[in-house]
Amino acid sequence: MRWSTSRVEAFSDGVIAIAITLLVLEIAVDPADLADPWPALADQWPSYLAYVTSFLTVGSVWMAHHGIFSRLESMDAALMRLNLALLMLVAFLPFPTRVLADALTQTQAAERAAVVVYGALVLAIELLLLAMARHGHVEAQPRRRRFAGIVAYPAAIVVALLAVPDLAAFAYLALAIRAVLRAPGEGRISTGRVRTD
Amino acid sequence: MRWSTSRVEAFSDGVIAIAITLLVLEIAVDPADLADPWPALADQWPSYLAYVTSFLTVGSVWMAHHGIFSRLESMDAALMRLNLALLMLVAFLPFPTRVLADALTQTQAAERAAVVVYGALVLAIELLLLAMARHGHVEAQPRRRRFAGIVAYPAAIVVALLAVPDLAAFAYLALAIRAVLRAPGEGRISTGRVRTD
Amino acid sequence: MRWSTSRVEAFSDGVIAIAITLLVLEIAVDPADLADPWPALADQWPSYLAYVTSFLTVGSVWMAHHGIFSRLESMDAALMRLNLALLMLVAFLPFPTRVLADALTQTQAAERAAVVVYGALVLAIELLLLAMARHGHVEAQPRRRRFAGIVAYPAAIVVALLAVPDLAAFAYLALAIRAVLRAPGEGRISTGRVRTD
Amino acid sequence: MRWSTSRVEAFSDGVIAIAITLLVLEIAVDPADLADPWPALADQWPSYLAYVTSFLTVGSVWMAHHGIFSRLESMDAALMRLNLALLMLVAFLPFPTRVLADALTQTQAAERAAVVVYGALVLAIELLLLAMARHGHVEAQPRRRRFAGIVAYPAAIVVALLAVPDLAAFAYLALAIRAVLRAPGEGRISTGRVRTD
Repeated sequence: MRWSTSRVEAFSDGVIAIAITLLVLEIAVDPADLADPWPALADQWPSYLAYVTSFLTVGSVWMAHHGIFSRLESMDAALMRLNLALLMLVAFLPFPTRVLADALTQTQAAERAAVVVYGALVLAIELLLLAMARHGHVEAQPRRRRFAGIVAYPAAIVVALLAVPDLAAFAYLALAIRAVLRAPGEGRISTGRVRTD
Repeated sequence: MRWSTSRVEAFSDGVIAIAITLLVLEIAVDPADLADPWPALADQWPSYLAYVTSFLTVGSVWMAHHGIFSRLESMDAALMRLNLALLMLVAFLPFPTRVLADALTQTQAAERAAVVVYGALVLAIELLLLAMARHGHVEAQPRRRRFAGIVAYPAAIVVALLAVPDLAAFAYLALAIRAVLRAPGEGRISTGRVRTD
Repeated sequence: MRWSTSRVEAFSDGVIAIAITLLVLEIAVDPADLADPWPALADQWPSYLAYVTSFLTVGSVWMAHHGIFSRLESMDAALMRLNLALLMLVAFLPFPTRVLADALTQTQAAERAAVVVYGALVLAIELLLLAMARHGHVEAQPRRRRFAGIVAYPAAIVVALLAVPDLAAFAYLALAIRAVLRAPGEGRISTGRVRTD
Repeated sequence: MRWSTSRVEAFSDGVIAIAITLLVLEIAVDPADLADPWPALADQWPSYLAYVTSFLTVGSVWMAHHGIFSRLESMDAALMRLNLALLMLVAFLPFPTRVLADALTQTQAAERAAVVVYGALVLAIELLLLAMARHGHVEAQPRRRRFAGIVAYPAAIVVALLAVPDLAAFAYLALAIRAVLRAPGEGRISTGRVRTD
């Protein structure tokens, strides 16, 4: 039996869409703190930072996933298993996201641990995307793009361990923004392509 | 590489469907209060108001999203990024929804902050929908419809800041109902269009 | 613009699938109670009853939704709005499900309120399904089937108000099982229809 | 009326994708414990074990579901009902998963109960998959594969009742890994099958 890519895509879309949407459940303001609402809302900045970072990270993973699958016509069981491992890690991301948001207002030791765990998980996701692209014989260009992350995440982890852990947290945001901005497909939509039904 | 609109639609549908469904998780009655059940259920009116408002708001965003995508044949990376930003804001809506529900039984300062944050988020969503329609060369008529929201949400925010914040909360409900009622496609289903298999 | 039924179906499937799956989040055993695990697990029977009842109720709604949409070729804005109202009520069901589970171990007043709210919501869902079938000119037979629910749910509410509220909770389970068992499409799969790729 | 397999697949994908993704919500570290972050993170090992076990278990169920549906052209109401029962059990799995994670750091009695409930649920899922394959006249080979689980889960339950309950928890992980590794479709992707658009 060969796996149809369309149902695997649909299932993957479902898991990724849910993982990306569950992130908001981690953000909360204690109703008692709403008596002084603006400081209470501002105090949640680590949650907002973690939300935007993880949303864009998962968004760029989805774009890379789409890029790989759009070049496949069918998949084998090995690719199916790599994909399941990828989804297992992506669906796990809300946990380190919450730990990161909680740690950013605490000690350097807490920040360091949170940043290392977060970076290690995203690095594992990047490596799995690379393995999927390689196994599926997808062309080198998207793979080269992912290499940036495979170098950058360990670098951020080293920075966190040796020096300033907060910096690594902001580096993750910058890396996620970069990944979204450098996704393939730069052509413009021309007017002629628009249906007028 | 060009993005296929169908998988982007499927992913967007997933994120929007989850964001709209998570809203119910914010509503709860303390089991201890069920000894006197009807007042306990009635006390949750701000949660019901926030649920209906956000459900219809997200529902009208989905209808606008559907309207834009049904007029596109393919999409470029810029539209993909606008779409991801839109989804990031829509998936964030459960947070201000909960804040709004919590604030409506508190001080005017709390209500004011909640209403401003909620309105600002929906305004940003409306602006992104407008940018997507413009980038995709979608015709002016649905865009004109969105302009109403782009004027109405800032107006509601001004009302909240200067005068009665509760009024703005009810204005959001009215705006969401209006957006759902004024969505395109007014033709009736004729009997001839119905399959009888 | 006409709505394509396929994307409306996909969005509806998403909302219904999420509403049906969120029901499990309401069930929990306090870890401290696991020292004596079997009674702690057995004490959750109202949660299990509420889970199975709501899962089968939503499942039968999905089957009815599928039955209506499989007979439509396109939809108009009025049907789109009825569908959005239906989804708003289905996505709300986890709340009365939790209230029902909490109330079943409390006073008769609590049970009565929970059973009335639950039954009223399912009745509203049944009425919306009937309105959708009527508006879409779907044939009378599935409609007649829904009429049973439209009579049975008010009857259960009257029983709850006048006499034994628990009985109504079990009646909801029986009605959901009946709705699933009486869904259309009784033909058997013949061997010839099976692909052997 | 015959059920189209595609919409049933889409709905099943949704429910399974959500059940698999909700598992992460059970994992949490108390922010106060982050002062000493590495032991606090390590203490969550039962949650990680339960997450990976349930993710791979549900993943293998999805693969088996895909295998059955890819061999069907249409489905009847009986298969639809078996499928709904399957989804009801799969969507319930986050509850015993949480109980298992909570119990693994407690008494043997707690572990035993958690392992028995978990194993019984997965056994029921396996039996439903077998019943679906049989009803749909799907060929014997995938069915034979499921038989392993139908023997192994009761064996693990007996081990838990008579001797070491922890062992059964790790047996569930091993069984899930085995089910994912032995899924059908062993052919490799050849370069010729890759589109180069």
